[in-house]
Amino acid sequence: MAEIKYEITEKIAILSKSGSWTKELNKVSWNDRPAKYDLRDWNHDAGKIGKGTTLTEDEIQHLKETLNAIKL
Amino acid sequence: MAEIKYEITEKIAILSKSGSWTKELNKVSWNDRPAKYDLRDWNHDAGKIGKGTTLTEDEIQHLKETLNAIKL
Repeated sequence: MAEIKYEITEKIAILSKSGSWTKELNKVSWNDRPAKYDLRDWNHDAGKIGKGTTLTEDEIQHLKETLNAIKL
Repeated sequence: MAEIKYEITEKIAILSKSGSWTKELNKVSWNDRPAKYDLRDWNHDAGKIGKGTTLTEDEIQHLKETLNAIKL
């Protein structure tokens, strides 16, 4: 599997922690591309990158408005 | 690859659209488990499930508070 290059350029929040796994909102630059918002599971102890998704500025703005509009 | 069973129990928001792909916030039940919040890319036309992450009630509450606290 090709080596994935990434850099966490900004640590924003740890949403939860389960054992060595954390679910985090960060800004991440993938393969030297401009950093994007990134919501993902990580196991930093074991150097593992979990499942997640990247979000553009527009998408995260839309997500914020959505979360404020719905009843959680 | 094992068949992935899912049901979108609640469509909440389409955050963006790019060609046939959409990035959506929904509630999804995976493999008959209780539905969880789910932030993911979909290509419904081609029946493709993209990358994403599930969020518990606590995690999405924490995400909402985080997004309201930071400058986007």
